[in-house]
Amino acid sequence: MSFQPPQRVLMGPGPADVPNRILHALAKPTIGHLDPAFGVLMEEIKQLLRYGFQTKNDLTIPLSAPGSAGMECCFVNLVEPGDTVIVCQNGAFGARMRENVERCGATPVMVMDDWGAAINPQKLEDALKSHPEAKAVALVQAETSTGVLSDVETLCALAHAHDCLTIVDAVTSLGGSELRVDDWKIDAVYSGTQKCLSCPPGLSPVSFSPRAVDVISRRKTKVQSWFLDLNLVMDYWTSDGPRTYHHTAPINALYGLHEALLILQEEGLENAWQRHQTGHEKLCQGLNDIGLELLVKPEDRLPQLNSVLVPSHITDEAALRRRLLDQFNLEIGAGLGELAGKVWRIGLMGHSCRNENIQTCIQALKTVLN
Amino acid sequence: MSFQPPQRVLMGPGPADVPNRILHALAKPTIGHLDPAFGVLMEEIKQLLRYGFQTKNDLTIPLSAPGSAGMECCFVNLVEPGDTVIVCQNGAFGARMRENVERCGATPVMVMDDWGAAINPQKLEDALKSHPEAKAVALVQAETSTGVLSDVETLCALAHAHDCLTIVDAVTSLGGSELRVDDWKIDAVYSGTQKCLSCPPGLSPVSFSPRAVDVISRRKTKVQSWFLDLNLVMDYWTSDGPRTYHHTAPINALYGLHEALLILQEEGLENAWQRHQTGHEKLCQGLNDIGLELLVKPEDRLPQLNSVLVPSHITDEAALRRRLLDQFNLEIGAGLGELAGKVWRIGLMGHSCRNENIQTCIQALKTVLN
Repeated sequence: MSFQPPQRVLMGPGPADVPNRILHALAKPTIGHLDPAFGVLMEEIKQLLRYGFQTKNDLTIPLSAPGSAGMECCFVNLVEPGDTVIVCQNGAFGARMRENVERCGATPVMVMDDWGAAINPQKLEDALKSHPEAKAVALVQAETSTGVLSDVETLCALAHAHDCLTIVDAVTSLGGSELRVDDWKIDAVYSGTQKCLSCPPGLSPVSFSPRAVDVISRRKTKVQSWFLDLNLVMDYWTSDGPRTYHHTAPINALYGLHEALLILQEEGLENAWQRHQTGHEKLCQGLNDIGLELLVKPEDRLPQLNSVLVPSHITDEAALRRRLLDQFNLEIGAGLGELAGKVWRIGLMGHSCRNENIQTCIQALKTVLN
Repeated sequence: MSFQPPQRVLMGPGPADVPNRILHALAKPTIGHLDPAFGVLMEEIKQLLRYGFQTKNDLTIPLSAPGSAGMECCFVNLVEPGDTVIVCQNGAFGARMRENVERCGATPVMVMDDWGAAINPQKLEDALKSHPEAKAVALVQAETSTGVLSDVETLCALAHAHDCLTIVDAVTSLGGSELRVDDWKIDAVYSGTQKCLSCPPGLSPVSFSPRAVDVISRRKTKVQSWFLDLNLVMDYWTSDGPRTYHHTAPINALYGLHEALLILQEEGLENAWQRHQTGHEKLCQGLNDIGLELLVKPEDRLPQLNSVLVPSHITDEAALRRRLLDQFNLEIGAGLGELAGKVWRIGLMGHSCRNENIQTCIQALKTVLN
């Protein structure tokens, strides 16, 4: 029997609510990936992504796989066996970066901060001084596992002062928080479509600086992944001359991304950032009104992902989330890793960041907590 | 401005025409990837895929990336540095397999057949005898670059007689040609959604035998790809107990795949195979009537991909394909690799394999060739 999904209100760590405009775009007729009309779509997507990332980088494309493949793409292309990479870890995704560095045959140097804290620039500077051999610094701008926003501008400036490349996870920040790839001198950045872009999951927008592209093109060893080898992917997404077949792009998912990026452009990037901030403040006020506290201190909070401490009298937090889902069709996220059972993660991403959602969430929480 | 794709008739090497039922499924409301309702969908997809592959393999899932990632997944999980892998190459995708083996730090032993010929079992047997150290044999059942169907049953039996694992590319065969994963003792198989399943591109159904899973779980080295590491992916798609977060599955694309697999089940697998064979015979008759010849000898032909020799009087075959697209909204494929400029590739995949399409194609070719 055909699958009929329930109509949820998605306020977890992603996916976010997908607007009807985007859902409709997904259902448009499929065309070939070598069709000239598809070439036009690809160029428009690249241009719109450049706006979202605030970059002029030529190599700005959506990878044909989810954000975790975007992360891997950055590492396997920029890192070679024997390299040293400084990884700032303050949650689950920094740990995943470490895994990626190790699987490239390189050595990770970890800069550790607590889950729930922002990355400490002083610790990064210390690591840079102790490891002059480091080739790159990797860090997460918006830690979805904790709800923390780190200061990418400062951290990247430190990395560049020590001649390191910068790799930034912007999965949950693109379209939701200030992100300026060129001004902040980010060399490699990856994101996902199912957070503040309000698309279904499945694609990973990435952007690479000319310096990063130069490093990739002068590698001594082949990229260990054929599918993610940017030397090949670039020729598929090229604007100059005929495109070289690499894989088959996910046509209909790209219709959705194109529509999502149009919506972002129509709203305006700064307006979208502000909407997330305003929504976050309203949510915090509402949570406060019903006696709930946030994990993260105010100055480090990520507007689009709010980690709420599970009240001590709740013995089965999973049952409570299940009740929100069953009774209110409301999804909020569980804690991840060392925060499992200790926090709920309330997402305000993209189309999910609306007053009606905030009200629904507060009312539903109030009901199930009483 | 919103993108409005043209309404094409897709008779190239994929994607195929996508039925409205599948397009509508893509546009259903997005739910979370940890929603209990999504867990139900995942189980149904696994069960339907087992039918399509004719297997009882527990590890039968759609990977969250296109077929080329499916290929890479098989190699990076089963192959370790220092291994020897026999690769049968009779077209573009065998060459890509070689690339994958090399990027795993392993040694490929190539069994070469001409582009347009089927894989020669005698050559494989010779290679197996010369390379008793070989761990696996990799081969393409349906070479989309040439339109050749090879005898997987015979080839896999040879491989197993020499105690090798078998890795089979079924990108263009799943749902279109006889494929019996269990009966033929295939250890690892990957496919794509945009061929005979008539979905948009973007996912790669894969299946692994218990023997393959055992090899993967006993690796000495970590899988070089975090995203494609089946030791992790398995825990995300598990049927037993709670699923472990790995990446975020492409929810809406999976709605489409589920619908496509229902359509296949409703038609019946054997009926689908027969429909492709019948369509192929009609197409060949029609091509013959207008004086066109096929590259591949009749007994090796792949029904769903027909390589047609470009007549010698055509000096600009690309212009002719462009005319088919502009005047008839008909897409046929160009030749790839060493067949570029020499053949056209006419696909009859899934929903594209219909009498009306065959007639449209023959009429359009007749018009532009006169």
